[in-house]
Amino acid sequence: MLKLVLPKGSLERATLELFEAADLAVSRSSAVDYRGSVDDPRIEEVKILRPQEIPTYVAEGLFDLGITGRDWIAETGADVVSLGELHYSKATARPIRMVLAVAGDSKAQRVSDLPGGVRVSTEYPRLTERFFAEHGVAADVRLSYGATEAKVPDIVDAVVEITETGRALRAAGLRVIDTILVSYTELVANPASHADPERRHAMGQLQTLLRGTLEARGRVLVKLNVGEADLDGVIALLPSLRSPTVSRLFSSEHDFAVETVVPKAEINTLIPALRDAGASDIIELPIAKIVH
Amino acid sequence: MLKLVLPKGSLERATLELFEAADLAVSRSSAVDYRGSVDDPRIEEVKILRPQEIPTYVAEGLFDLGITGRDWIAETGADVVSLGELHYSKATARPIRMVLAVAGDSKAQRVSDLPGGVRVSTEYPRLTERFFAEHGVAADVRLSYGATEAKVPDIVDAVVEITETGRALRAAGLRVIDTILVSYTELVANPASHADPERRHAMGQLQTLLRGTLEARGRVLVKLNVGEADLDGVIALLPSLRSPTVSRLFSSEHDFAVETVVPKAEINTLIPALRDAGASDIIELPIAKIVH
Amino acid sequence: MLKLVLPKGSLERATLELFEAADLAVSRSSAVDYRGSVDDPRIEEVKILRPQEIPTYVAEGLFDLGITGRDWIAETGADVVSLGELHYSKATARPIRMVLAVAGDSKAQRVSDLPGGVRVSTEYPRLTERFFAEHGVAADVRLSYGATEAKVPDIVDAVVEITETGRALRAAGLRVIDTILVSYTELVANPASHADPERRHAMGQLQTLLRGTLEARGRVLVKLNVGEADLDGVIALLPSLRSPTVSRLFSSEHDFAVETVVPKAEINTLIPALRDAGASDIIELPIAKIVH
Amino acid sequence: MLKLVLPKGSLERATLELFEAADLAVSRSSAVDYRGSVDDPRIEEVKILRPQEIPTYVAEGLFDLGITGRDWIAETGADVVSLGELHYSKATARPIRMVLAVAGDSKAQRVSDLPGGVRVSTEYPRLTERFFAEHGVAADVRLSYGATEAKVPDIVDAVVEITETGRALRAAGLRVIDTILVSYTELVANPASHADPERRHAMGQLQTLLRGTLEARGRVLVKLNVGEADLDGVIALLPSLRSPTVSRLFSSEHDFAVETVVPKAEINTLIPALRDAGASDIIELPIAKIVH
Amino acid sequence: MLKLVLPKGSLERATLELFEAADLAVSRSSAVDYRGSVDDPRIEEVKILRPQEIPTYVAEGLFDLGITGRDWIAETGADVVSLGELHYSKATARPIRMVLAVAGDSKAQRVSDLPGGVRVSTEYPRLTERFFAEHGVAADVRLSYGATEAKVPDIVDAVVEITETGRALRAAGLRVIDTILVSYTELVANPASHADPERRHAMGQLQTLLRGTLEARGRVLVKLNVGEADLDGVIALLPSLRSPTVSRLFSSEHDFAVETVVPKAEINTLIPALRDAGASDIIELPIAKIVH
Amino acid sequence: MLKLVLPKGSLERATLELFEAADLAVSRSSAVDYRGSVDDPRIEEVKILRPQEIPTYVAEGLFDLGITGRDWIAETGADVVSLGELHYSKATARPIRMVLAVAGDSKAQRVSDLPGGVRVSTEYPRLTERFFAEHGVAADVRLSYGATEAKVPDIVDAVVEITETGRALRAAGLRVIDTILVSYTELVANPASHADPERRHAMGQLQTLLRGTLEARGRVLVKLNVGEADLDGVIALLPSLRSPTVSRLFSSEHDFAVETVVPKAEINTLIPALRDAGASDIIELPIAKIVH
Repeated sequence: MLKLVLPKGSLERATLELFEAADLAVSRSSAVDYRGSVDDPRIEEVKILRPQEIPTYVAEGLFDLGITGRDWIAETGADVVSLGELHYSKATARPIRMVLAVAGDSKAQRVSDLPGGVRVSTEYPRLTERFFAEHGVAADVRLSYGATEAKVPDIVDAVVEITETGRALRAAGLRVIDTILVSYTELVANPASHADPERRHAMGQLQTLLRGTLEARGRVLVKLNVGEADLDGVIALLPSLRSPTVSRLFSSEHDFAVETVVPKAEINTLIPALRDAGASDIIELPIAKIVH
Repeated sequence: MLKLVLPKGSLERATLELFEAADLAVSRSSAVDYRGSVDDPRIEEVKILRPQEIPTYVAEGLFDLGITGRDWIAETGADVVSLGELHYSKATARPIRMVLAVAGDSKAQRVSDLPGGVRVSTEYPRLTERFFAEHGVAADVRLSYGATEAKVPDIVDAVVEITETGRALRAAGLRVIDTILVSYTELVANPASHADPERRHAMGQLQTLLRGTLEARGRVLVKLNVGEADLDGVIALLPSLRSPTVSRLFSSEHDFAVETVVPKAEINTLIPALRDAGASDIIELPIAKIVH
Repeated sequence: MLKLVLPKGSLERATLELFEAADLAVSRSSAVDYRGSVDDPRIEEVKILRPQEIPTYVAEGLFDLGITGRDWIAETGADVVSLGELHYSKATARPIRMVLAVAGDSKAQRVSDLPGGVRVSTEYPRLTERFFAEHGVAADVRLSYGATEAKVPDIVDAVVEITETGRALRAAGLRVIDTILVSYTELVANPASHADPERRHAMGQLQTLLRGTLEARGRVLVKLNVGEADLDGVIALLPSLRSPTVSRLFSSEHDFAVETVVPKAEINTLIPALRDAGASDIIELPIAKIVH
Repeated sequence: MLKLVLPKGSLERATLELFEAADLAVSRSSAVDYRGSVDDPRIEEVKILRPQEIPTYVAEGLFDLGITGRDWIAETGADVVSLGELHYSKATARPIRMVLAVAGDSKAQRVSDLPGGVRVSTEYPRLTERFFAEHGVAADVRLSYGATEAKVPDIVDAVVEITETGRALRAAGLRVIDTILVSYTELVANPASHADPERRHAMGQLQTLLRGTLEARGRVLVKLNVGEADLDGVIALLPSLRSPTVSRLFSSEHDFAVETVVPKAEINTLIPALRDAGASDIIELPIAKIVH
Repeated sequence: MLKLVLPKGSLERATLELFEAADLAVSRSSAVDYRGSVDDPRIEEVKILRPQEIPTYVAEGLFDLGITGRDWIAETGADVVSLGELHYSKATARPIRMVLAVAGDSKAQRVSDLPGGVRVSTEYPRLTERFFAEHGVAADVRLSYGATEAKVPDIVDAVVEITETGRALRAAGLRVIDTILVSYTELVANPASHADPERRHAMGQLQTLLRGTLEARGRVLVKLNVGEADLDGVIALLPSLRSPTVSRLFSSEHDFAVETVVPKAEINTLIPALRDAGASDIIELPIAKIVH
Repeated sequence: MLKLVLPKGSLERATLELFEAADLAVSRSSAVDYRGSVDDPRIEEVKILRPQEIPTYVAEGLFDLGITGRDWIAETGADVVSLGELHYSKATARPIRMVLAVAGDSKAQRVSDLPGGVRVSTEYPRLTERFFAEHGVAADVRLSYGATEAKVPDIVDAVVEITETGRALRAAGLRVIDTILVSYTELVANPASHADPERRHAMGQLQTLLRGTLEARGRVLVKLNVGEADLDGVIALLPSLRSPTVSRLFSSEHDFAVETVVPKAEINTLIPALRDAGASDIIELPIAKIVH
């Protein structure tokens, strides 16, 4: 029922792994095929295309639902409905930033310090022109086909470039002076498809599976035993994400089994604290999906 | 107590991974050693040999239990007891088919359209001869040492070959006109060993572990909370593989914790449906083994 | 609060995987950086340095806590407090042994059979000298820079070398005649840091996480259903690591859900036995951490 | 004295290998550095940048000499002087073709068969617009960011794409209906630099080394002995690339040593023919460079 | 004009490298295609098929010329004309031997020591049966599908197997007691094709190129200068493969330039000897082909 | 006749490639075997051992001839005869330097600026102690087991370390303040063996082959034709390494063929200059060995 378009290239692998973990595995006849299918009644077809072109295709109605970056949604200015961010990327769950950078020894501290006629290389010419116009700088913006950071200072004076850690820019001797955009991967819909109740319901269900999978990556299930006397103290330590499931042990009237989901990032301090508070037989299990 | 023989070659890796997941890990001094051992009181020795030869060795009593393909059981005609299929293979859980294929531009639509004296290349000469004889065609069957599909039309007129997707045959310009056999991996026993009650019991236990592992690959454990009012509706949605475990939450009289095992393939529609039906705090956990 | 030092080299990868699994992931700017950090309030800094040098650094107070092998603690004779063994290594959970080996055709059966002036090559000269002195043999001990086993018989008469399986020594034609030391990886602390109550408490908590992770590698969670009549029989079969959690099924008064943690190594016999004893719907789940 | 710019990306490796073979090895601090240097008095600096941008940079005078493809020279319409083709590419010495392709079942046989408003995806929008305008077709040309062939027929009706063998286009179900351009790698110069006699002389010398290296790849040196009677016959068989060097053997008045350079592609027929004509002791040697 | 068949599998890579070095490069659309072509007027088509089947196909006239091992020519007993050995193989220029091997602790010292009914596993059943029959032993010969050496002593009593160094047999605990055949790679022709003068001439020319290439692998060209007084002494040291080319230096009446081809294996002693004998400016050049 | 010892580890691969190119290929049963052999009458046995231990073994007479670095000859102070440097190493022909380095922000400019008690980490403790003693600084020198540069400033104040480009030291934030030694790979002999005329002669011959191979790596053979009028001019351009071989062309009285060996590094300027001076048909050939 829904036509989906997923990003080819640097996000491709992470996106397909997410879909597989969400039980929406994409089948393709080969790893370079741009056509895929998902064995799911809500998904009619899947294509894997360049993220730069996805906002336009979704806006034009060639697809109902797509995944792409906020950077390309902004660059194209395409008319799509954002269903929200999906926090994953090539390697980490961190967003990428689109920044303005100049030579390390330039005196400019912000965009407005740059002179008229400043040469700027970027893969995002429209967004860059808008940004400079908003700051009243008449820039000479040039389309870059890659290796943008290598062009300062010989070929251009500044670049507008995306970066995850800033390492590549620093390694090329550049200094970041402004952040134009923080870009996460987003789920975007065609406005007409989204206005249709049935399709919107299906989109919501897919989003539930994708988000449930992403959220589970940072959570674990903790199970423990505790005596009546320590029960309240142990429960007070548990993060309040979800009320814990408490059950009395059959074998021993005054002992309880407690289980709850906690963020992985807190486990290193939580488990020792639980043990100090009287919990015993603490075990931690991996989880595959979580839906509130 | 039991002597086991496992298949060397294309199934070797998948078989050893299955045994490890079934807590029957096979130790070898090196990855090319044909002798292994399992730290299990029921298994006396393990050898890893060619699947073509396994039916004969099991029939002759050199081993009590073996794993091989139905294709070789049929080709050798060996006298073994099949304990049933194990649904795994090199890459997928799909079976392989043994087919008869001819040149793409041949006019034959079925085996009986082929003329007497038709030259047929195959790695399964006995099975092929039997098949042609049953259909009343006097074929000139030749043993192939591999690359069988490359021999049509210059060297032979037809081939009998195994295939998973048919892609290699089509790529060589061939057309399938008959399916001779559908072949799964099978667990086979020596008839005398199988007649012995103690050995048969041990075989059954190993089979339980192997099947429990394979079955778990397609299942997950789902846990959820639900209020009294929605309990019946939620339970009605659950697949009936196994009755769900329902327990009243200690913290809240009118809420229940439900847990059950469901097929992975249904998760993509089940989780959204459960949520629509009033379930909350749904989590999904991977499972390693399942035994009914 | 604590300064940690972890071993570079052959144990590095396994150590970093252990820390990640223990939710104490070590971040480094690159895979060859010797400086790391852990996002944990108890850990002030992490360095990754050669295991040979770690005992000395911990003894001198450059670090509060370190991980290294018993072999280097013994060789350096450094004044550190051992918090106990951590059973993991490059590939397996087995310890390494430090052995004395001679040419395969030597007549020596034990160290005391070796003559005065015997030439011995080793990477552990101090420990080797102490060992020979204790046995009253005046050996000519020489520092080896590696490939120690290759030096017998042309260059030296015997070697003192570590080995996991003895295979490399046998392949070089040597014969082991004495075991000097069995060496596990250990967690060692600076004595002054360990005397400080606050630091000792933090060290204990880290040890809990590391041990809980290592222990979980050999355990699984088993869940099963059983009728009232078979409950005692099934429970009697369960290993007594931890008392099982038993709960009455809501749906059926006379049926129980049982769950417990069992060693992976017993699963191959336990599951068939449970089934024979009346358990049904047995499932096995992987666990990530276990703390008693 | 000369500033050089070489292509980053698919041609990078082959270009750097060519420069090394031409004894103009480019040193870089790492394989991803865009700045290089050559230990040669004629070369002041080397940069490695995207081939798409090279024609513009050379035309603007940022570099004196560059290497890029004819496709990008045509697309940018940059004002550069071509010093001629260099016959090498990623894998072979064949050129790439820029073609117009449509769906396999389209009825169009040439560009003029396409209707007004035809949607065309391409990485070469300017060249494509010019080409359609020349043929009187008002096309809707869209910039492609890659995977262009995957867009027919769902997203566009035709593509303009480069291809070496046509295989990727055929695999995507497309049919080529026109060739717009045949594109070799070219050596291009800035017009002002080329007008300067000293720089033009230096450019010519570099070109001599690069061409001499490329030409040597298809040549070998053949040496043979022949008696006086057969000398003319043998010489008549030799390709006339270069007059053979003939010298009388010191040891035998009536015998001659002949050596000459011949195309590798003719060796398979030439050597047997020479032997049939009376040559003996024929040897073939690889050559590294040839300059006429 | 000639139809060629080359061996697929373990010899494939070395064979294709030989053909390329011989300027008879085989083109295929992909590395797994069994059909190839050579840009040579003497070669009409090339197929790459299993070496086991090649003797039969050449004998039946499906091909004029083929490359396969002596082992398969003997096993099939096919009626082909051998044009001689080509000394190359997977890794070395050494032949393989077909041997009879038994368990290391067997008392048999030769084939005739084996009892009637001895079970023998082999991939060469016909040759093995003939061999045992010639020695008057009634063996139970069984077709092996690989891993033959693993079957002694549990499954069979002896094996007939090919080996290059004997290492795999020794590693499996076997002992070689007889050599049945020494097998080189051979060039074989169909008898009728070989009887045809034109085809035989073409076969001879191909053989010249292949042998010239193989021979060149073990040869180098040596050039040196020498004064008149030392000329005879130096020439006397040169191997007599080919008379050296001697020419008087233009620059110096009494000095000579000498060049000759020598076996690589003698270079390590020849060059020092030449220098001791008065030669100077000795250089050694690689050669690609040599035809006497 | 000679016993050789070659360096295991970082130089191993380059050393074995050098021996193979010098027609002294070392055979080993496997790539980790420390025992080798060379099919050469002058070489009795070859062992491959750690470079740190080689000077001592050669001095003690366990080997006649060895290859190791100057750094270890100096560190051990072993009594060996150096036959000279062999200019090759892991990646380049450049030497390594042993340097003294301190923290980047240290004020020390030379060794004498360091205070008494300065802590120094090094893999060369004896050489380092000697160096500090010569400069009157009482250093606390500690044996390092690797990753030496990571120890400044936390663990030590300075390091003595080898470096090829200084990059690793700079990356660790260190600054080089003194060079203690420049270290090439050297050929070293046992003094007694070297005093024996026959062995010394054999050593000289091996050295000739090794040096001839190394020298050839930087040389090519150039052949050209030139008319009588331009002959002197062309010859004047040729480097004077070796007098060129000039011969009159048989075919044309007034033309000459010239051939000579020239350094590869000069080819980029020489070939264009030769052509400008009237040479034609210039070809360049690779050479494998050169002995003056």
